[in-house]
Amino acid sequence: MNFEDQIAELERGASEVLTGPDLKKKLQRGVPLRVKAGFDPTAPDLHLGHTVLLNKMRQFQELGHEVTFLIGDFTGLIGDPTGRNATRPALTPEEVQANARTYEAQVFKVLDAKRTRIDFNSRWLSTLAASDVVKLAAHYTVARMLERDDFSRRYKAGQPISIHEFLYPLAQGYDSVAMRADVELGGTDQKFNLLVGRTLQEAYGQEPQVVLTMPLLEGTDGVNKMSKSLGNYIGIADEPDSMFGRLMSISDTLMWRYFELLSFRPLTDIAALKRAATEGRNPRDIKFELAREIVTRFHDAAAAERAQGTFVERYAQKVLPQDLPLTLSTTPSLTANLVNTGLASSGSEARRKIAEGAVRIDGEKVVDPATQLIPGNEYILQVGPRRFVRVKLEQKP
Amino acid sequence: MNFEDQIAELERGASEVLTGPDLKKKLQRGVPLRVKAGFDPTAPDLHLGHTVLLNKMRQFQELGHEVTFLIGDFTGLIGDPTGRNATRPALTPEEVQANARTYEAQVFKVLDAKRTRIDFNSRWLSTLAASDVVKLAAHYTVARMLERDDFSRRYKAGQPISIHEFLYPLAQGYDSVAMRADVELGGTDQKFNLLVGRTLQEAYGQEPQVVLTMPLLEGTDGVNKMSKSLGNYIGIADEPDSMFGRLMSISDTLMWRYFELLSFRPLTDIAALKRAATEGRNPRDIKFELAREIVTRFHDAAAAERAQGTFVERYAQKVLPQDLPLTLSTTPSLTANLVNTGLASSGSEARRKIAEGAVRIDGEKVVDPATQLIPGNEYILQVGPRRFVRVKLEQKP
Repeated sequence: MNFEDQIAELERGASEVLTGPDLKKKLQRGVPLRVKAGFDPTAPDLHLGHTVLLNKMRQFQELGHEVTFLIGDFTGLIGDPTGRNATRPALTPEEVQANARTYEAQVFKVLDAKRTRIDFNSRWLSTLAASDVVKLAAHYTVARMLERDDFSRRYKAGQPISIHEFLYPLAQGYDSVAMRADVELGGTDQKFNLLVGRTLQEAYGQEPQVVLTMPLLEGTDGVNKMSKSLGNYIGIADEPDSMFGRLMSISDTLMWRYFELLSFRPLTDIAALKRAATEGRNPRDIKFELAREIVTRFHDAAAAERAQGTFVERYAQKVLPQDLPLTLSTTPSLTANLVNTGLASSGSEARRKIAEGAVRIDGEKVVDPATQLIPGNEYILQVGPRRFVRVKLEQKP
Repeated sequence: MNFEDQIAELERGASEVLTGPDLKKKLQRGVPLRVKAGFDPTAPDLHLGHTVLLNKMRQFQELGHEVTFLIGDFTGLIGDPTGRNATRPALTPEEVQANARTYEAQVFKVLDAKRTRIDFNSRWLSTLAASDVVKLAAHYTVARMLERDDFSRRYKAGQPISIHEFLYPLAQGYDSVAMRADVELGGTDQKFNLLVGRTLQEAYGQEPQVVLTMPLLEGTDGVNKMSKSLGNYIGIADEPDSMFGRLMSISDTLMWRYFELLSFRPLTDIAALKRAATEGRNPRDIKFELAREIVTRFHDAAAAERAQGTFVERYAQKVLPQDLPLTLSTTPSLTANLVNTGLASSGSEARRKIAEGAVRIDGEKVVDPATQLIPGNEYILQVGPRRFVRVKLEQKP
């Protein structure tokens, strides 16, 4: 592939490329690029949001470049140095290794294991002496560091920023120096830190890396970024049926976003699908293609076929009414919602109905009476074969 | 000596004692205190201004405490990490040792060599790992560091502050942790850094040190702080005649300040001298006592006697006119001043007169035709036995 096509492919889906001309210059040399992407050392449990970046790494691999999956274990080995956060104890080297193995088991669903280098930044950061840290810190100013969004916000709000927090972006930037990285990939929220790497490489007499940021993927709600704590995520270790069902639950608009950032299909394919949709093809069938591709990636083609079969069967059984009025709810408790919408006369009746297997959410039987609804999501609640309500739990401000 | 008297003696002349109650508590334990004072590792050439602090250290020694003269060589061994300041290359360990010996030769004129520990902070700071620096930096916030006068001023003025500059006060504070210091002494300009030491000791589970700051001594001009670059200093290695003469040149007001901060005489003695002055004793004779004490300290009693004799003799010989009008000059060049004031018709005549030994400044023969006057000072220039002018070189703005 000529380098113009490489560039088009590599820049596909990126939020920003800083700077494109540098990327071209580096590619023109015809030498494989050293590509770096950093990951947290804490126990990983990846969801599709994380794979946006992995997909980009994979593209670089397919084009013959050297990709390093860098585990930022230096900070993890320190833990919370203020001692204020008891939930962040220092990791042991054994824990770091265990976490790395957990990562491997997951990321090699996307990355090519034979072409992926897994590395740890403690390898070089833990050998730095205090004097090296001083020299490193000399290459960046307080004012520039305070321009980082979160620092700026906290400083203006009078919230404390410990000085060691200024050292972490420098340590991360030093990783690029130690690795002589040509390209660093990261989420848009990492842009500041990735640019620190460029500055430090120049200070240490190196050619600065190209910074390529990828957008943050929206969760299944289509609003917030995908995140475990918001409950709007699809884990890459999820069972095929659950993964398929959750992919089918996204809106038709969000589907195109997922195609752009998650599908490996060429852009021409996706354009063709969009044309088909405007010409009347059922969006559900197009979503099937997306869901099958993703489930195939993390399981296999047979599992994807079976998941689609299960989905179709359940969907047919559910026969959920399509035109129910929407009730806005302010409580996440399922039993409270059953009472508030008149599907049960009391909390105890609601729990009994659940115990009897008479309660369904979006057609799926509920077994846990403590089930909570997710803010921002819409549900069809059902008791018995014929009583339905549609509720949406309000997002907290 | 009981501890109340100790406290009175130790706090004598201090600008601030933070905190006095802590000092009392520490003294009451009856265990010798670990007293720390830090000094630059660059080639020292001490003047009387530096001895204000040494005198205080000596007082602690006389009361039986353990005094450490700490050479802050860690920063010197790093040099200027930004590489911008070519005049601040990193010192070698040999240079640091040579500078330490130069210090010893000078400070043992004041300190008791047998009771002084000379130490180097590179001993512990150079053993810190990057992770230790991160932990150290976690104990101080950006906002508090930006409260330091010079940082605050530079930040507001948009002048760059490199992040490593934030690490130096932390390193200095860590010295107190490593030494388990009970007391740290320093100039008033060091107050912020000394307080960082208190904060860090508490963070590392130690009892915080008492911080005792000493005022900065004014130079012979009585206005600016004594400093080599301002030319208003008296070096402790100066020859007896020069030292005596310069001490005699200070104003009668400044004399009392020098008594307070430089004399080892008890406060009762000084009060008696003040009474004598108000009762008509010639201030010159009181100044003789000060000058003799200081010259004796840095040379010996015989040298002081001789210096006073020389001074009296010259003074008598000089018979300088007391009521000459003052000429303001803008050039420091002696020859230019001789021409400008009409004492010589040309630069070459001025140089010939100097070569003939016919030119004097304040009654002292000039031998070097390149002699420069010091801004802010007043001089009587003389050519031959009878021609005088009084000039004052303007201070640069």
